[in-house]
Formats: sequence, C-alpha cells, structure tokens
Amino acid sequence: MKIKRALLSVSDKSGIVDLAKVLKYFDIELISTGGTKKALTDAGIEVTDISQVTKNPEAFGGRMKTISFNVESALLFDRERDSQEAQLLGIQPIDLVVCNLYPFDKVLAESADFDTLIENIDIGGPTMVRAAAKNFKYVTVLTKPQDYEMFTKEISASGGSTTYEFRKRMMTAAFNHTADYDALIAQTMDSESGNYSLRLAFEGGTILRYGENAHQNALMYRMKGKQNTYFDMKILHGKEISYNNILDISGAVNAVRELPGNACAVVKHSNPCGLSSGINQRKALEQAWQGDPISAFGSIIAFNTPLTRDTVEFFELNHANPAKRKFIEVVIAPRIEEDALQYLQLNKNLRVIEFDMTKMTFDFDLRFVDGVLLQQDTDRMLYEKLELVTISEFSKDKNRPLIEFGLNVVKNIKSNAICIVGQNDSNFYLLGMGAGQPNRLISTELAISKAKAFIQADFNEQLADFETFYADKIKDVILISDAFFPFPDNVELAASQGIRTIVQPGGSIKDKAVIDTCNTLGINMIFTGIRHFRH
Amino acid sequence: MKIKRALLSVSDKSGIVDLAKVLKYFDIELISTGGTKKALTDAGIEVTDISQVTKNPEAFGGRMKTISFNVESALLFDRERDSQEAQLLGIQPIDLVVCNLYPFDKVLAESADFDTLIENIDIGGPTMVRAAAKNFKYVTVLTKPQDYEMFTKEISASGGSTTYEFRKRMMTAAFNHTADYDALIAQTMDSESGNYSLRLAFEGGTILRYGENAHQNALMYRMKGKQNTYFDMKILHGKEISYNNILDISGAVNAVRELPGNACAVVKHSNPCGLSSGINQRKALEQAWQGDPISAFGSIIAFNTPLTRDTVEFFELNHANPAKRKFIEVVIAPRIEEDALQYLQLNKNLRVIEFDMTKMTFDFDLRFVDGVLLQQDTDRMLYEKLELVTISEFSKDKNRPLIEFGLNVVKNIKSNAICIVGQNDSNFYLLGMGAGQPNRLISTELAISKAKAFIQADFNEQLADFETFYADKIKDVILISDAFFPFPDNVELAASQGIRTIVQPGGSIKDKAVIDTCNTLGINMIFTGIRHFRH
Repeated sequence: MKIKRALLSVSDKSGIVDLAKVLKYFDIELISTGGTKKALTDAGIEVTDISQVTKNPEAFGGRMKTISFNVESALLFDRERDSQEAQLLGIQPIDLVVCNLYPFDKVLAESADFDTLIENIDIGGPTMVRAAAKNFKYVTVLTKPQDYEMFTKEISASGGSTTYEFRKRMMTAAFNHTADYDALIAQTMDSESGNYSLRLAFEGGTILRYGENAHQNALMYRMKGKQNTYFDMKILHGKEISYNNILDISGAVNAVRELPGNACAVVKHSNPCGLSSGINQRKALEQAWQGDPISAFGSIIAFNTPLTRDTVEFFELNHANPAKRKFIEVVIAPRIEEDALQYLQLNKNLRVIEFDMTKMTFDFDLRFVDGVLLQQDTDRMLYEKLELVTISEFSKDKNRPLIEFGLNVVKNIKSNAICIVGQNDSNFYLLGMGAGQPNRLISTELAISKAKAFIQADFNEQLADFETFYADKIKDVILISDAFFPFPDNVELAASQGIRTIVQPGGSIKDKAVIDTCNTLGINMIFTGIRHFRH
Repeated sequence: MKIKRALLSVSDKSGIVDLAKVLKYFDIELISTGGTKKALTDAGIEVTDISQVTKNPEAFGGRMKTISFNVESALLFDRERDSQEAQLLGIQPIDLVVCNLYPFDKVLAESADFDTLIENIDIGGPTMVRAAAKNFKYVTVLTKPQDYEMFTKEISASGGSTTYEFRKRMMTAAFNHTADYDALIAQTMDSESGNYSLRLAFEGGTILRYGENAHQNALMYRMKGKQNTYFDMKILHGKEISYNNILDISGAVNAVRELPGNACAVVKHSNPCGLSSGINQRKALEQAWQGDPISAFGSIIAFNTPLTRDTVEFFELNHANPAKRKFIEVVIAPRIEEDALQYLQLNKNLRVIEFDMTKMTFDFDLRFVDGVLLQQDTDRMLYEKLELVTISEFSKDKNRPLIEFGLNVVKNIKSNAICIVGQNDSNFYLLGMGAGQPNRLISTELAISKAKAFIQADFNEQLADFETFYADKIKDVILISDAFFPFPDNVELAASQGIRTIVQPGGSIKDKAVIDTCNTLGINMIFTGIRHFRH
C-alpha cells in the first residue's frame, strides 16, 4: 500500500519531526492537530490542519479535534469494496496514522487530581488508532516512537509503502496499546471508587518443554514492562531451561541476591540446602556444597558475583573417574568469566546462565491459587529488633552479621523452616536446614542431623575424638526458626545436641515457658519480632 | 442530571425493549441505530434514527454509523463551560448512552475466521462509551444489561435523572468494559501473529489482615468471570480468613475434591498430613487425624461431603478439660448441617466455611515467579499405566482403588513426596507422608516414621506384641513416590521396615537396579509412567 496521506497526532513528540521529514521525502501529505502541528510547522514542515479534513472546528476546549465522519471514514472504508461509495461521499483515504495517546499514565504517576486524570483520558486518539488498526489491510498505524525506525526502513525499502506483515504487526501493537491504556484507566477508576482491581499483562510467551511434569504443557511469559527477570537470562551453554529450573533458579537467586560478599546457594526442589557467603568464592561453593552433599547432586547453584575458573574447578568436570564429576543442573551468576565458561562446557548438558540477580526489584509477590489472586508485599524486613530475652552473656553486635545471614537463609526456606548457621573467619555458612514440615520439631531434627553431617565432614580422627570436636563446633552455631516455638520441646532438642544460641520471632503465648527452659538449659535466645513464613 | 435524550445501540439486545419503555415513560427521546432501532420499532417504540443526529448516512457496510462530530460532541461537551459553544454549533446534548459492543468474544469462541474477527472489532461503540464515560459528570453510560434494573430504580426514584455516584459507578464499569474488550482483541491478535500473550483481570480486591507474615500487606482478588473460587466461600462462623488460610485451604480442598466417598484432609503448612476416604465421614476424620495427630493441632480440615454433627463431635469442643478440645483453624465442606454448625460454634474463633470444592474447574495453573509468569496444564492424569515390573504375585485390579487414592495424595504433597497408604474395609487412608525434602530418602524416612506412629495408635498391647502387630499391618500398605528412584536405597529402606508394595513412575536410568533389588527383597513394584512433582 503506497502511503499518500498521513495523520500525525501525538502526545509524546519524540522523533516526530524526523519521521515527518521522512514522510515528506516520500511526498506524503501530512495532516495534523494542535501541538503536533505546531512542532512540525516550527520545524518548517508543511502540514494540513485537521479541520480542513474534518470540516469541523476544534471545539469544547480541545475535546473535539479529530472525531468526525470524514476522518474515521478515511481510515475505515474498505479500499476495494467501498471505494466507489467513498468517492461519492467525498472521502479521501488516510493511509497512515501516527498517534500516541494523552499521557494518562504520566499524570497518574504525578498524582494529579481527579479532574486532571479525567481530562487526560483520550477519546479521539483511541478512536483513530483503533479505526486504522481495524483496517490494517490498507492502513498503517504507529503508536510508539520506538517503531518509527522500523517503519522508516520499511517505506525506504519499498519507495513509500508498507507490507501487509508490517501493518499486521503494527495493528497488533495498536490494540495492545489501547488495551494497556484502558486497563490503566479502569484500574484507576476502580481505585477512585474504593475498589481494588488489578490488570496484568504478560507477553512474549515462550513454550517450555513441559511443566512440572512431562504430561503438563507449559509456557513462560514476561510481565509487561518488567526488566531484570528470568526473561533476561543469558543462557551461555547447555540444555533448554525447564519449568522446574525456573522455580529452582528463583530459590537460588533469592537466597544469594541480598547477601554480602561472595555468596553461593545450592538449591534442590526450590529450597536452599546449602548456602555460604564470604570473601572467597571457591570457599563459599565448598561450604555450600557441604551443607548437603547428597542433595547437591542434580542441584541448581547460584552465585552473586562473577564466577571464576578457580571456583568451578571444584566440580571436577574432567575427573578421570566420571563418577567423581559433580553432576549439577544449572549454574547461574551475574557474569561467567571466559575461562570458567570453557571449563563448565566440559559438561554438555549443564545450563550455564548469566543473570544479574542483584538488579532484581520486587515490591510485591503475586500468587494464583485456584482462580483467586493473592498479592502481598515482598518479605524484605529481616528483623524488627534483636532482643536477648535470656539471662546470659551474648554479644548481639558481634553475632549480628551471622544472625542476618541466618535470617536471610530462613526466609528463603519453605515453612516450617529451621536453619543452623555458623561462621569461620569471615565466612558464613548453612550447616543444615529442615523445610516444609507440618511439625516444627521434625524440621529441627532434620536441621540438626544435617548439621552433624556437616561437622563430620570437617572431622579428622587423627586430631581429636568426634564428640569433643562436635561439641566444640556446635556451641558456636546459631539455630534460627522462621516462626515462634509453641512449646519448649524444640529448645530441649537443640540444647540436648549442644546448640547454645537460638533466634526466633517470639510472640507465642508459651514464650515464658520457652524462655524459662532456655535459662535452665543455658541457651541464649534472641527475639526478632518478625516471622518469616514462606509457603 | 435530568435525562432528555438517550442513544441506544446494543449488540446484546436482552432487556433493551423494557429499558426503552422505561425511558419513554420519562419522556426521554430515543436515538438508535440499525438492529437496535428495528427491535424497538418492532415493539412499537418511537425512535429517532441516528442519521438525523449525525447528519451523515450510514456508510461502508455499517462501519460508519455513529461516529460523527455531532454525536461525540453531544456526549463530550462540558454542560457548564461549553454550553454556549454547543448552542452556537447546534449541538444538543445526549445524556444517556446504552451500548454494548460487537460480540468479539462470541465470534472468537465460535472459532470464526480472521476476517470475521476483524469485522467484529467495534470502533463506533467504544468511542461512544468512552466519550460518555469521560463526561460522566453529566452523562450516564450503561454497558451491561445487568445494570438496567439498577438504572431503572435510579431514575424512578428521582423522576428521570441519575446521581453523580451512579454515573461514576457506570463510568468505572464502562472503562472496565472497554479494557476487557481491547484486552481480548490484543491477546487474540498476538496469538494470530504467533505470539503468546496473556491479559488477566482481577477484581473485588479484599484487604486481608496481612500476608504470609504480619509485616506484609496483602489483598485477595477474584479472577474476572471465574466462578467457584475461594471468593465464593461462605464463612458461617469464626475469625476472618487469612492469607495463609487460603494457601492451606487450597491444599486441603484439592486433596479431597477428586476423591470418591466421604473424604477428609488434614492440612498443615499447605501439605496434607492426614487424609482418608470411605463410606463413613466420622471414620474418615478419625483416620485423617491419626495420620499426624501432632501436626493436626492448628490444622485446616476439609471434607468433600456435607458435614454432620456426628463427625464434628470428634473435635470434643465441649470437653470438660479444655486441653482435650481439639484446636483447629478451619473446617470447610460443601455444606455444614445446622446441628454440626451449632456444635462447631462452641469454638468462637474456628472458621467454619461452606464451599463446594467439587465444582472447582481448572484447566491451568498460573505461577508468578519474580516478574515472570509460568503457565501449565493442571496435573490431572493420575497414571498412564499400572505396570507390575517385578516377578511377584500382586493383583493390580484388586489394589487399583488404593493406588488411585495414593496417587491422588502424592500429587497434592510438595516434592520430594513419599506417601504410605492403606485400607481397611472400604476406607482408604494415609499412614504417613514425607514432603518438601531435597533428598528423597529423607522423605521416605519421614513417611515410614509417621506410618509407624499411625499403626502404634491402633495397637492394643493386650492382644499382641507390637512387632507382630506392626508386621501384619505394614505388609498391606503401599508406598508411593511422586518421582522415580535414582537408586535402590529407598527400596532397601522400605523393605527393611516391612513394606511390600511400592508404586512409582519409573523412568530412571537405574530402573533395572531398582527392580532387581525389589526382586531380591520380595517387593512388588508398579510403574505408573506419570511423575507428580509439585513445588
């Protein structure tokens, strides 16, 4: 379709003068309105005023500018079926509409008053855009300055026309534009009436191999406009990413993204079972692995700093004995150094991903549950206080970094969650965790049994007996609970295993009994005031 | 605002004749178009043709009917600021628009061809509706037949006018209508271009007391148009429903909704820790409770059949010793019989909910993960086959109902999941489960330890010694795994505890070693071909 007449009416004027020059180069007549016309005229570009087409004056404080039998007919008539009728009615075709709408989003973001919001609801713009889009078989519609360049290439290549494919693409963009526009208006008006509604748009749906299981089809979408999500991962090597990979990656990157230093998380079934943070990345990986060396088999491993060759050599991917090579599913880090990548490529299936999780930003979580949507603030506050509630000598300040590490761990583990954390030099690490249990005592048992295995791995029988070694190590760890203890039984269990310090939110009606038990057993107990359930 | 002129142009004609009669009663002039005009004229109602207002002919196969300077001016001009200008331009106000749009949704549902879809994109309708809505300070807009009754009351009460509040409400409904309309068009056009997008609308947002934790604000929304969701729960008694209640309720109702007979689930931290199904509801509750009597404290309990007094008396809510009263958070059933409700009200906090979970229908699950959306088919297929892979005598047909019960349990437990199920008479029950572990062997250990406690609860030391009793009970249970066994260790553990039958998907490269171990240890093993991961 050769373009002969174009209507330009934009609120966002970026790029419009350059576009108009391109159109003029192809001898296209330009029709324009108000501010757009002024911008073009100021740039020395000749423009027909819209009223010469509408045959009506601009009226009612600008509320009526384009809407008219003539303009919408010029956009809507079928160039084949209706051409004679158009001629009889004196309608000349308009072949291109360049239009973006009154900036309702911008005035909303500026907290404009209600009347200003209403005045910024565009009526003429959506009408033109939608009319042109409906008739995309003949008419081109541009709704975003970002599309001008592509359009310019398109008409330059063809000497002034556009292809059906291009027009169809722009039509689709146009309806997305008006859908976004009215979605925001509807949501705003609901909220102005005291009703909460939410309209979410997802795009770029990618078909995954399957869902959680092979008999479930699945797709992944990007939330419209959201940056730094798993959609922006760069997969440098390995097999296609699966649905379960995404869930595990989420568990892993959330576990490390707020930690200081070089952090490493080992995740299985979306729970971190190993986690460490310190000055040395290789050491962090070794300690994270030690958190649960059995479960680490087939795990997802995330780092919050650029991944080095020294670190990844821990996986022994070129070990002469294939059974000694550490099998993992995914490695993810903000950057993968070239020599590290080369080494990781020794495993042809291993997914190696660059993704800067430290740039992720989330104010709220959304959860779809069987047709309802739950929305909540993201769980960001680690603690409200660190209150020593027992009669004991314990330096909160000295232990604060370890407690903060542990709270970050526990908030990323599914409830009921217990974790046991420790430190050596400036490294923090998870010794063991218990997750997803209906009974908190079982989580504590699981965490302690993992912690024992962790300590066992460091044990050298030539230097000490295990009991002495264990007692010496366990006394310095901290056990952290995601929620309060309803009874003293967890404290008794922890104390019987040599644990000396427990951190929990507090707030149970049995707090006094729990604290009394701590005092009797010589346990330090710290209340944080903040629960960290996660389901 | 006294209504003097109304424009009626509807695609869905239900109720339009009655509405027109009401308008006529208040001496309101009716302007109308095409099919709507015919319907009204056929009913003997006098109508002004739209072309008398537009001063234009209907043109281009109906694409141009209403769009005109005159109609949109009549809707849009400010009745105060612009009244003189309107008079000069000969514009008479239109005070009411009744309009619903070309049925794009209907033709889409009928799998119409692309041209028909395009022809069913309404241009004039949304323009009128949006213009009227923008000028709601003066103009009333009705976009749904369901609103006619409310409108009729409104103008009847006032003698022919509407209130600002009513017009604002209808304005909000109108922008929701056009937002929905363009959302569907945009999504459809994306899909026509081979792009997958999703636009979801949620409404009726209710503020919850808080989210998963007290420092997180939260809301619950209904997915637009979705029926039989937690939004439709009838809360007959007790405290406000919390965010975590919804998650637990989902775990509980999904566990029972597809089970035969009288089923009961006891859920804690969204995993069923007790589950039973049989001919007697009270018995089902008792057995479900026995699945984990410790965790049942503070649990959510769901039934799939009307809840009777006999059943709920199990909770002993009027026990003389308050410590013997069973503390639970939520009871939910399709119906609560009156005397059962009376009994449950003995606990003033207990949430008692009527909700028919058997009517829930879901084709897909949505999961929002840090800014991306995962969509997958709901996990509905229990098994692809029941293949006995060991050399053993085992009747699949006799055991099919129990295996189906167990697969339904395991698919509702978070992975790694192991469950142990049994039956007596025609009752099926869960003896123990292990959930959410990074290491499957730990899940098996947890499930076995719970199963032992379950059997212990039935034990009477006057009749037998425990070992004999246990061995006799455990030999008939079935252990079910949500995914394949990567090694024979789980089989060895199960066999050492007296378990004789194991059901799992199969598909590991180690299947042969696993089967060989079963044959050596005299274990029946069934492959289902279907994994049931759930995270």
